[in-house]
Amino acid sequence: MNTDARAQTVNLGAGPSMLPTDVLMEAAQGIIDYGGAGIGVTELSHRSSTFKNLIMQAENDLRTLLDIPSEYAILFLQGGGTEQFSATLLNMLAAHASKHNGQGGAPPVDYVVSGSWSGKAYKEARRLYEPVRQVVDLRKNIGDATQPIPAPSTWNLSSVDENPAMLYYCDNETIDGFEFTQDFIQQLPEEYRQRVPIVADCSSNILSRPVDIRSHAVVFFGAQKNVGPSGVTIVIVRRDLVVDPDAVQQSYYPRIPTTMVYKNAMDNGSLYNTPPIFPIYVSGLGFRKLVEEGGVARAQERAHARAKLVYDKLEQHPDVFKPTVAHADFRSQMNLTFRILDANTREPSESEEARFVKLCEENKVVQVKGHRSVGGIRISLYNASTLEMAQKVVSLMDQFIKE
Amino acid sequence: MNTDARAQTVNLGAGPSMLPTDVLMEAAQGIIDYGGAGIGVTELSHRSSTFKNLIMQAENDLRTLLDIPSEYAILFLQGGGTEQFSATLLNMLAAHASKHNGQGGAPPVDYVVSGSWSGKAYKEARRLYEPVRQVVDLRKNIGDATQPIPAPSTWNLSSVDENPAMLYYCDNETIDGFEFTQDFIQQLPEEYRQRVPIVADCSSNILSRPVDIRSHAVVFFGAQKNVGPSGVTIVIVRRDLVVDPDAVQQSYYPRIPTTMVYKNAMDNGSLYNTPPIFPIYVSGLGFRKLVEEGGVARAQERAHARAKLVYDKLEQHPDVFKPTVAHADFRSQMNLTFRILDANTREPSESEEARFVKLCEENKVVQVKGHRSVGGIRISLYNASTLEMAQKVVSLMDQFIKE
Repeated sequence: MNTDARAQTVNLGAGPSMLPTDVLMEAAQGIIDYGGAGIGVTELSHRSSTFKNLIMQAENDLRTLLDIPSEYAILFLQGGGTEQFSATLLNMLAAHASKHNGQGGAPPVDYVVSGSWSGKAYKEARRLYEPVRQVVDLRKNIGDATQPIPAPSTWNLSSVDENPAMLYYCDNETIDGFEFTQDFIQQLPEEYRQRVPIVADCSSNILSRPVDIRSHAVVFFGAQKNVGPSGVTIVIVRRDLVVDPDAVQQSYYPRIPTTMVYKNAMDNGSLYNTPPIFPIYVSGLGFRKLVEEGGVARAQERAHARAKLVYDKLEQHPDVFKPTVAHADFRSQMNLTFRILDANTREPSESEEARFVKLCEENKVVQVKGHRSVGGIRISLYNASTLEMAQKVVSLMDQFIKE
Repeated sequence: MNTDARAQTVNLGAGPSMLPTDVLMEAAQGIIDYGGAGIGVTELSHRSSTFKNLIMQAENDLRTLLDIPSEYAILFLQGGGTEQFSATLLNMLAAHASKHNGQGGAPPVDYVVSGSWSGKAYKEARRLYEPVRQVVDLRKNIGDATQPIPAPSTWNLSSVDENPAMLYYCDNETIDGFEFTQDFIQQLPEEYRQRVPIVADCSSNILSRPVDIRSHAVVFFGAQKNVGPSGVTIVIVRRDLVVDPDAVQQSYYPRIPTTMVYKNAMDNGSLYNTPPIFPIYVSGLGFRKLVEEGGVARAQERAHARAKLVYDKLEQHPDVFKPTVAHADFRSQMNLTFRILDANTREPSESEEARFVKLCEENKVVQVKGHRSVGGIRISLYNASTLEMAQKVVSLMDQFIKE
């Protein structure tokens, strides 16, 4: 197994992202022969005790890492975060219909829009259902230092008397580099917080800091950023909100395709149909490694140390670099986004950015270009990245300034 | 990389199934460093040219193997065959609505039920939609030599004047061991065949024999039986039937979640959202290998030679073995299912079957137990299996009889 080129490359892509070499080395053996039984892991029956033990271990480790109480189920699903844009809405509407015995008509659903991904989730909700309420749109505030991020108490929330079926938000916006401060969303009015199921997309910052599962109805994340390879989406859901949608179906929302019904996954231990074995397996290896390395508290310290190096460098050179998030508290610890300014105009310069990307690539620091929809530079420093990688980026920033 | 135990094990599981060792060895290197660039394949951005080339190569090889004309798109999706039970129906209803400008109301959809999987697809259709018509139920015929398999011309098909939106069938029933004779379904009445979109689930026999793509609207298959690891589902669909469902939405069928909309996948080269990279990659390696080894014609010869060995042995010992499919022409070349009879009563005996399973396991021939819903023995001989494996099974059958 040749790892020479790998050791020299710093992959800072936003996802699918880099994974620890030791995890991938174990996986490489595992696909040839898992546990010495003469069968590779992807060749196991998903009904075998070997695979059931594997998925249970992954679940237990995740439960430990995020302190997930037993009242919550952990589902391993397919379709990515995008499929959950539809599935969380439909399942929460079914839960609402069940709770209210189908009385009261179509409830509102509330959406916090803070960037590209929550914007897409909001758009999908509007495709599938009404009434959908955008309670706040933070996209105009993010890059504008004169526009503070408004507190949740000021958002245009549905009244609790309207019994909203859910509030949806995205904890970290991978493309925009915007991350809510920890538990910011918990500043919602107390009655609202206690009565409305809260759904969080944590695809790009899960396991990088604690998340208060108990205050959420659903926390979901695609694996391919901070967890493992693409192909599995993990849904943590409060069990009492998981209902049989066929028992409560209302005409005001669409019938839910079987593979999106949380109850099918929950009742069958994520084995209603054949699961994506390899992504689950490698995610499990990653969970185990993180448990052994000190858990989420340690991951948070490391993330903070890495991000601080880069953000400090941006702050030191406001004539060269401009963070795309104007409010320092809301800058992502995972996806560090910034523009590079023209020396004369002090405006963002695509040619300067191209020059920086080229310098990085010449030094084998790859995938630092911003998302095609927003441009600029994006340095993604997920759990698998190291302080040395952040140091290397910073040294290239210094070199760029000098040149 | 230790392959010793692997070389001694014969894995005849029905899926996720065995894969060729050379394919897995290449994949093991590929997840560490793909193409020497210092990045593993699952760490590539799905927007990178490297990954786009990978998925295009896989698509082109599949196009060659199945002689897929350019009028058909190839989609790499998630959710397994089970998700396609919902998606094919909803997309074909949208295509129908588009073609008829929303006139004429809810069309019938026709289902051929020939075993467990088509039975599940039919059940899902009834969950989501009406009118759904079961045009024939072959389950009572399969095990009964006195009940021939009725010709398609005798099925209770919808009239073409009713404009059915689709006919659905499963080409090979993995659990029941029933496989349609090649192009049997093409014996449908000519007018029906030309006017009604035909949808085939070929999950467990794709690439084991030619399939006439041109006579189908959709051919789909999960990878984890005859293609690659679990986690990707491949949909071959006639482009003119792929429509924007939001442009033609009718109230008589449910709105389609975004990840199930074929048009999103088609217009974005299967990269609407992050694809399951590893399963696509390994499936592509398998396609390449099959192209190099002579394609589907050669695979069919090999499958026939393997299956014949086992079926001949069953026929030679009708006092010991009883094929679960009574009609020899409809016995699957992939999933060979049979019961073992009690020496005295000549009835299927679970204890004899347990004894055979044990004998196999002692000889490292594993996963030969029938599906929990039907019992008996199931020998799955997919493309990755060898004649030597079939010979080993037959020798164990001989040994079993002697003991």
